[in-house]
Amino acid sequence: MHHPAPRHPRLDPLADRYAARTHGMKASEIRALFSVVSRPEVVSLAGGMPAVTALPLDAVGSMIGELVSGMGAQTLQYGSGQGDPRLRERICDVMALEGITDASPSEVVVTVGSQQGLDLVTRVFVDPGDVVLAEGPSYVGALGVFQAAEARVKHVPMDDDGLIPEALEQALIECRAAGDRVKFLYTVPNYHNPAGVTLSEPRRQAVMEIADRYDLLVIEDNPYGLLGFDREPMRALRARDDRRVIYLGSFSKTFSPGLRVGWVLAPLAVREKLVLATEAQVLCPPSLTQYAVARYLDTQPWREQIKHFVELYRERRDATLESLEALMPAGTTWTRPDGGFYVWLKLPHGLDAKLMQPRAVNAHVAYVPGIGFYADGAGQEYMRLSYCYPEPDQIREGVRRLARVIEAELDLHSTFDGVDTGTFRAVSGPQSPTGRGVEGIVGPANSDRYEDLR
Amino acid sequence: MHHPAPRHPRLDPLADRYAARTHGMKASEIRALFSVVSRPEVVSLAGGMPAVTALPLDAVGSMIGELVSGMGAQTLQYGSGQGDPRLRERICDVMALEGITDASPSEVVVTVGSQQGLDLVTRVFVDPGDVVLAEGPSYVGALGVFQAAEARVKHVPMDDDGLIPEALEQALIECRAAGDRVKFLYTVPNYHNPAGVTLSEPRRQAVMEIADRYDLLVIEDNPYGLLGFDREPMRALRARDDRRVIYLGSFSKTFSPGLRVGWVLAPLAVREKLVLATEAQVLCPPSLTQYAVARYLDTQPWREQIKHFVELYRERRDATLESLEALMPAGTTWTRPDGGFYVWLKLPHGLDAKLMQPRAVNAHVAYVPGIGFYADGAGQEYMRLSYCYPEPDQIREGVRRLARVIEAELDLHSTFDGVDTGTFRAVSGPQSPTGRGVEGIVGPANSDRYEDLR
Repeated sequence: MHHPAPRHPRLDPLADRYAARTHGMKASEIRALFSVVSRPEVVSLAGGMPAVTALPLDAVGSMIGELVSGMGAQTLQYGSGQGDPRLRERICDVMALEGITDASPSEVVVTVGSQQGLDLVTRVFVDPGDVVLAEGPSYVGALGVFQAAEARVKHVPMDDDGLIPEALEQALIECRAAGDRVKFLYTVPNYHNPAGVTLSEPRRQAVMEIADRYDLLVIEDNPYGLLGFDREPMRALRARDDRRVIYLGSFSKTFSPGLRVGWVLAPLAVREKLVLATEAQVLCPPSLTQYAVARYLDTQPWREQIKHFVELYRERRDATLESLEALMPAGTTWTRPDGGFYVWLKLPHGLDAKLMQPRAVNAHVAYVPGIGFYADGAGQEYMRLSYCYPEPDQIREGVRRLARVIEAELDLHSTFDGVDTGTFRAVSGPQSPTGRGVEGIVGPANSDRYEDLR
Repeated sequence: MHHPAPRHPRLDPLADRYAARTHGMKASEIRALFSVVSRPEVVSLAGGMPAVTALPLDAVGSMIGELVSGMGAQTLQYGSGQGDPRLRERICDVMALEGITDASPSEVVVTVGSQQGLDLVTRVFVDPGDVVLAEGPSYVGALGVFQAAEARVKHVPMDDDGLIPEALEQALIECRAAGDRVKFLYTVPNYHNPAGVTLSEPRRQAVMEIADRYDLLVIEDNPYGLLGFDREPMRALRARDDRRVIYLGSFSKTFSPGLRVGWVLAPLAVREKLVLATEAQVLCPPSLTQYAVARYLDTQPWREQIKHFVELYRERRDATLESLEALMPAGTTWTRPDGGFYVWLKLPHGLDAKLMQPRAVNAHVAYVPGIGFYADGAGQEYMRLSYCYPEPDQIREGVRRLARVIEAELDLHSTFDGVDTGTFRAVSGPQSPTGRGVEGIVGPANSDRYEDLR
């Protein structure tokens, strides 16, 4: 009851009584820009919104309406904390497509999107100060979870074949030397958000060998695995090790993100902790949305729907890469995703994606600056381009506008070379094609958040 | 990476790497009993499930089906972390029924049930070791949240008029003397779960005066406020103080718990923290369920539906109290709720509700033992009876069975007086009619959890 004087008495009279974790939370500096981005004249390559209008909305609507009319006693009622048993069975069928054939419904916990799954896993394992290893760059929503848990994030660099195993081992050695408690590796092996790259088959083996050697727990986050353009789904890390890998899945990209249905597959002892944690957090996931997904998988041609999504995203990826190839000034490089939603673009030397952003929005094109995907302020020269939502013609127009903005920055840059004008600045130090060296451990995570970064 | 040897290597190879908060989580000793409880021959007075089949299911089904068919681009897509703006407007209309007329939609955060609201508030305010004041008994789901946050809970006793203001002040004085950091008072002022009592009007004033005097933050959890049997809704604590009260609301009891739509009303600075916290936890609440609630409030006769629920629950409350009056052996006492779902029953001296439970289930009646509602192991002589779900005839039969079980325990008790047979035991110390003295601060919270305790 003996509180010190509030720091900002007029702004927030409760500022002196927040938890320690809360002081690290800050509103995004660029959130204001995102309201501008939603204007129709702006081509947004920023958001990661799936193309849900490609679903058979009438059929899905009838299906869900009947679930309520005919099964209201179940779909409108509380359910179990672990999630609907029928849905957990169907989730096992879905995971089998990526080689996970030994999963039991009893090992599955249904979550409010895989975001909640990651939050629960982090809550169960991570104490403040613990280290989490994550790719650099890494999913911004994961960095938010780690920040809320007061974890320290150590980035492990990637290249076009995904996470670099040697760098992972190096990071583990450094942590061991420093006496850091590494709780797990967080990885998005397929069609990485934001990097757009996929962990190759030999590297999957190498990563799991290292995990075994260093007794490392691996959190495999796999929302995009079924969205490959040119091949069968890769075999999941979880298919190689059922004790050392906790798997996060989602229906957000294969069906609907607005239902918020994801899941965790974990060994039984961990599953038990996750159920207790989710009961404390939400009691149980929504019943209606779970029944909707289970019924969708039972009665609708969901595999064909995924193929339809894949065709649509492939076309948009093609439009993106062709436009980049045709229009980007020399010195600009980017990844070439063969699945998923994202291209990771590196600006010519000296440009800064965040400083450039207001000009881009003025030119009616939006992207996400790379620094949001690092916990340590790195990534200034990068941006994420999402091709999942806009139509191909919009994408081409968006890339055209973006190319012009970059060219204008380069012109300015050559005029005022070396002078920080506030719209660009020199980026120092050596840079690898799609990543950086092993960064130091930092915490809390970078505070930039976006309303629309899935 | 240098972990000690696992404690239970065969049971859980990861046991050595959980977070500190996780070690306090334990599976319920009586969860197994709850699967027995769901058998049709058992009358369950245990669960807090609302009577959702009293809803117009066809109309609600058509309404939700049309939302998906006609507005799939919104209802199946990601939404904002704070929640749908239209729903937040309608939530302000709902709160006005309890005297909160100054709330702005910008101060509302939509949550996955009010459970998530409480979890977010706790996450934003509570560090491990902080003290939370809560009624004794208190909602078991809240105790789970506080345990997960590693808070210490100090119970404040109640009587038939709710929380006792003098006891609250006493608790604050004790905490001040001990140098404890009290983060907030958590209270369910209306038709308390599990106690069934309501905070009287003079006490509302007294509690807020104490809050003012001691600079105390109050979390007002109000899922049942519109379910009063005999009067207009009471004026909310939040209606008396918009800076010192954070209000939690829910549609689980007035519409549907399976949609998991609740909300937090908080001052803007706190709201901002809550939005960041919920984005890290679930990105955004489900869109479909939010649109469903907003459309329901826009197009369906929801006030009349609440009246219908109230009539139904009143009838069940009457059946409960009449049966208790007619059948319970001398020495048994109980509260007389005039709203909500619950009766709090005290057994004759010497009986223990948890030890008696297997006999009750054998006799095909179920209840929730009182100890689940205390963080400190108190409440052995109490049980919660829920009348919300069973039909009046089932309730009468359930109470009849329960009375027989209690009588049998009393017979056994008089035969083996003072001997602990394992089915009953003496409860020592003085007891007040519906509460206990100010308990010591304890932590972690009692580990008994129930799948079905709302």
